[in-house]
Amino acid sequence: MSPLLDPTLQHWLDLVGIFVFAISGALLAVRKNLDVFGIAVLAEVTGLGGGLFRDVVIGAVPPAAFTDIGYFHAPLIATALVFFLHPHVERINKAVMVFDAAGLGLFCVTGTVKAHEYGLGLPASAVLGLATAAGGGVLRDVLANEVPSLLRWDRDLYAVPAIIGATAAALLLHLDALDAVTMTLAAALAFVFRLLALRFGWRAPRAWHRRSEATESEL
Amino acid sequence: MSPLLDPTLQHWLDLVGIFVFAISGALLAVRKNLDVFGIAVLAEVTGLGGGLFRDVVIGAVPPAAFTDIGYFHAPLIATALVFFLHPHVERINKAVMVFDAAGLGLFCVTGTVKAHEYGLGLPASAVLGLATAAGGGVLRDVLANEVPSLLRWDRDLYAVPAIIGATAAALLLHLDALDAVTMTLAAALAFVFRLLALRFGWRAPRAWHRRSEATESEL
Amino acid sequence: MSPLLDPTLQHWLDLVGIFVFAISGALLAVRKNLDVFGIAVLAEVTGLGGGLFRDVVIGAVPPAAFTDIGYFHAPLIATALVFFLHPHVERINKAVMVFDAAGLGLFCVTGTVKAHEYGLGLPASAVLGLATAAGGGVLRDVLANEVPSLLRWDRDLYAVPAIIGATAAALLLHLDALDAVTMTLAAALAFVFRLLALRFGWRAPRAWHRRSEATESEL
Repeated sequence: MSPLLDPTLQHWLDLVGIFVFAISGALLAVRKNLDVFGIAVLAEVTGLGGGLFRDVVIGAVPPAAFTDIGYFHAPLIATALVFFLHPHVERINKAVMVFDAAGLGLFCVTGTVKAHEYGLGLPASAVLGLATAAGGGVLRDVLANEVPSLLRWDRDLYAVPAIIGATAAALLLHLDALDAVTMTLAAALAFVFRLLALRFGWRAPRAWHRRSEATESEL
Repeated sequence: MSPLLDPTLQHWLDLVGIFVFAISGALLAVRKNLDVFGIAVLAEVTGLGGGLFRDVVIGAVPPAAFTDIGYFHAPLIATALVFFLHPHVERINKAVMVFDAAGLGLFCVTGTVKAHEYGLGLPASAVLGLATAAGGGVLRDVLANEVPSLLRWDRDLYAVPAIIGATAAALLLHLDALDAVTMTLAAALAFVFRLLALRFGWRAPRAWHRRSEATESEL
Repeated sequence: MSPLLDPTLQHWLDLVGIFVFAISGALLAVRKNLDVFGIAVLAEVTGLGGGLFRDVVIGAVPPAAFTDIGYFHAPLIATALVFFLHPHVERINKAVMVFDAAGLGLFCVTGTVKAHEYGLGLPASAVLGLATAAGGGVLRDVLANEVPSLLRWDRDLYAVPAIIGATAAALLLHLDALDAVTMTLAAALAFVFRLLALRFGWRAPRAWHRRSEATESEL
């Protein structure tokens, strides 16, 4: 997408990001008792949904998800892996979360850069960077008929790291200081923040009045 | 969108419409116990979703939601308001419903006009006017994992006022009689119809056979 | 869409396909106790959603769903029929399933061909053929707040016939052997496979480890 990184490296990073997102979709599909096609659809949607949404919105059609066949195959490999080995994949859930955090960091930055290349302003580009990183997971949860975990109070911070990474990328674009090194730093910032949120169970607050009630009704 | 109204006035009306739609999204988010990012996402989706859908369908990309930064900020203000003051916002729920009806009236008309400007036929433009007005609320309910209230039997009429306003706008376009005054009248028609539906609890019928059963099973 | 079939015939086939898909949407709306507008919206979404998604993704905007007014009317006729006669429509549910299978066969082939006409590669075109055929049903179930039956283990095969038909169409395009006869054969292949899946209750497997557990927890 961006000429800032070595294209081959960029492509491999994209594939890894799509793959780990797809793993999270496939695992949810197994938990929801879906069949093998349900697993594949959730894997594809989770891996490609965020980028697909961004590309449709910025007018980059047909989207990269449909022009690069590798992007389509990565979720199928995730599907096969989870289909045959899901108890083992569940067991390495922590490793999956780490890779997912890496995908989050990567896509919030590359999504922001691609949206800006298509002529969007910096704030709008950052919003699309967030949508690129988090959109697949939202579609995954909608298809699985659950409230998106992105929105839920009882899940560790997911949007904030992506917002930080996307904002950092937008700031770098604004300062004309975006290159392979600073881009990697912005992605690493989001990645590390997400890991810390997981490690320490950081959560976002709910509406002010709500909190006092909840301690009664939910405990 | 339309040169028929004073652009500054049009822009302010759009912002007010987006803001009140966003309030309804933020309130639902609080009721669903979402965190502050969930509130912001539901506010953005409710405020901007209908217009975003219209713009993607008619090929107006990047959509206005991403090119006018004010459109993005209005839901954030709604988020802050609901986050800190939601018991008070709930208390003025009736006022919110009145503003929401105004947003409905406004967007069903401006959505129809914009779709027609992009070359769609009059019936298709009216459908997109309806989608502009009601689409954000549908996305809001899908993300909150509820059956869209637009579709539900036990909610007061919401689609009908929007259909009336969009049809009136399409008729005015057909008669080449659309100007600031007639456009305002079309929006006011939808607005008043929605207020009457709320006041008198107007509902749409369900399938014929269904009604007799329902009186038994639901009471 | 495709000049391969007589355009008038193609158009009538499209209308029939949209109509039968819309019937399935309208029937689900009645089962979910929605009002007449909910029935109409689910009918429209089920009938037109798959093609709309394809057209937005390949950049064919405004989509056919909004440029051909007949496409919009077919679901309204389905709505009226189900609204007044739904117990009778339920009774001929088997006939509806047969027509739905015909729509599935038709759209997976024409969707693949249209995507290819817009410059997509063959694998991506086949994926969009599947999305054209199955997308409307997925949107229907999401709006009705259910896990899409396409993804569910306890439903007869739906994706596989569409994948077969779309793959056959892509192979014919690859071999430059697509004409009215072979196209009809590809659609018939998907149609017959779907009927067999219905007749014999063919289902797709779930994840390996899952099956043994499920026999205990679900029986």
